Amino acid sequence: MEHSYDPCFETSVDLLSDPQNQRVWSIIISLFGDMAQQPNDQISGSALTRIITPMGIKPEAIRVALHRLRKDGWIESSRSGRSSIHYLTQYGRDQCVAVTARIYAREPASPQDWHVLIAADGCGQAVLDEALLLPDYVAVNRTTAMGCGPMPKNTHDLLALDASNFSLPDWLKVQLFPAELSTSCAALLKAVNAIPEMTQELSPVQIASLRTLIVHRWRRVVLRHPDLPANFYPAAWPGDACRNRVFSLLDQLPRPNLAELGELVEA
Amino acid sequence: MEHSYDPCFETSVDLLSDPQNQRVWSIIISLFGDMAQQPNDQISGSALTRIITPMGIKPEAIRVALHRLRKDGWIESSRSGRSSIHYLTQYGRDQCVAVTARIYAREPASPQDWHVLIAADGCGQAVLDEALLLPDYVAVNRTTAMGCGPMPKNTHDLLALDASNFSLPDWLKVQLFPAELSTSCAALLKAVNAIPEMTQELSPVQIASLRTLIVHRWRRVVLRHPDLPANFYPAAWPGDACRNRVFSLLDQLPRPNLAELGELVEA
Repeated sequence: MEHSYDPCFETSVDLLSDPQNQRVWSIIISLFGDMAQQPNDQISGSALTRIITPMGIKPEAIRVALHRLRKDGWIESSRSGRSSIHYLTQYGRDQCVAVTARIYAREPASPQDWHVLIAADGCGQAVLDEALLLPDYVAVNRTTAMGCGPMPKNTHDLLALDASNFSLPDWLKVQLFPAELSTSCAALLKAVNAIPEMTQELSPVQIASLRTLIVHRWRRVVLRHPDLPANFYPAAWPGDACRNRVFSLLDQLPRPNLAELGELVEA
Repeated sequence: MEHSYDPCFETSVDLLSDPQNQRVWSIIISLFGDMAQQPNDQISGSALTRIITPMGIKPEAIRVALHRLRKDGWIESSRSGRSSIHYLTQYGRDQCVAVTARIYAREPASPQDWHVLIAADGCGQAVLDEALLLPDYVAVNRTTAMGCGPMPKNTHDLLALDASNFSLPDWLKVQLFPAELSTSCAALLKAVNAIPEMTQELSPVQIASLRTLIVHRWRRVVLRHPDLPANFYPAAWPGDACRNRVFSLLDQLPRPNLAELGELVEA
């Protein structure tokens, strides 16, 4: 059964779509991460199409993106009769799992324990650059990295120290939360605040479309800055307001189970 | 009364004189700092000569140094009959007072509370360089300074943080205690360890000569590195052994009072 045209759903999709940044493969990852992250989860090709095409993405673009995701080792596909089935590889699952806690955290993480690693002007740079590849480290300047939690046992050729009572200059706030990120976050906040109350019941596929768009946009905000205490935020950082509205919307759009999506597809 | 030739005194002066680094004006400051730092203290020109010439320094070099010290505002001189009288200016006294506690500290100061100031790669450098002019700050690298005690209220455009549990790389130890300083300190330790037991009673002037030489050499070691906890010392840093021997010698050479020096001169 096809749901009738719902202007609220259409409006919401329009608000949440980000035409300048609609990477289809990335949206597909957002979808799998939100709804099919478990080892036996799978999504049929037709469900995928019905969830994603309302975003203004053509089936051909979905096929190209799936091809790329298979090539990069994120997704595997198989055929079942006339229809295709897609699922995350172990690698793809691991990538999703690694960021799920941060994407879905309802409270901003605010780690209080920090250490700092400092290289000499001409010594230890390589070790510092290595540390900065780890997710727990944030670059302060060319020779300084802040790390979350206790300092590592072996700090090699770096000066290491436990840090507390940060007094934060504006340049560091701007560096950690660049203007472009604040703009993205403010745009998402504006979009989620504008989403209307639904006047009709949404189908599981429509819910999946909206959840995917919301998670996709939020993921691209929350993963682009490190977890930092609130005193690191720049003035008027809209992140907390955005997070609250995102989770209030997701609560109104409970994750459909994959069987429901499948049924619809088979219908 | 002139004391007779004392080979122990001569040996000690030879051991303590540093022919490569015998700046006469600096030795005179060591002497005033050690024996005539109070507002009404004064040393006669003839006492000065009798204290300093045994170091192999000519009266003419003493006159030149006194001239320079007057010109630089450290010392004033006046005439009293045939003899001249020298004393520290307020400026000279202030300079001496500022370092007396560090020179005469019998236990190495080991400040435990530190903060760190960090400039951006292209921002805050001037403020950092300003902080590094203060005696409580130590440069770590071009953009990082360590400061003793609590962080200042206004850290301007710098990232500031309280630091603890330093893990110290060799490059920082070498930077704070350069090889040249370790060499100077080891040479002084060797010299003070070689000073023989005195076989004859020393005159007040002889005591003044030896005290001046010891304080002068020690001053040039202890003021050339910041007060840092022992874990900042490089391996085999001879500073503590040197300090112990320096103060044991100074205890054996109690500071003569200026009247004694004067009497001898008038005798």
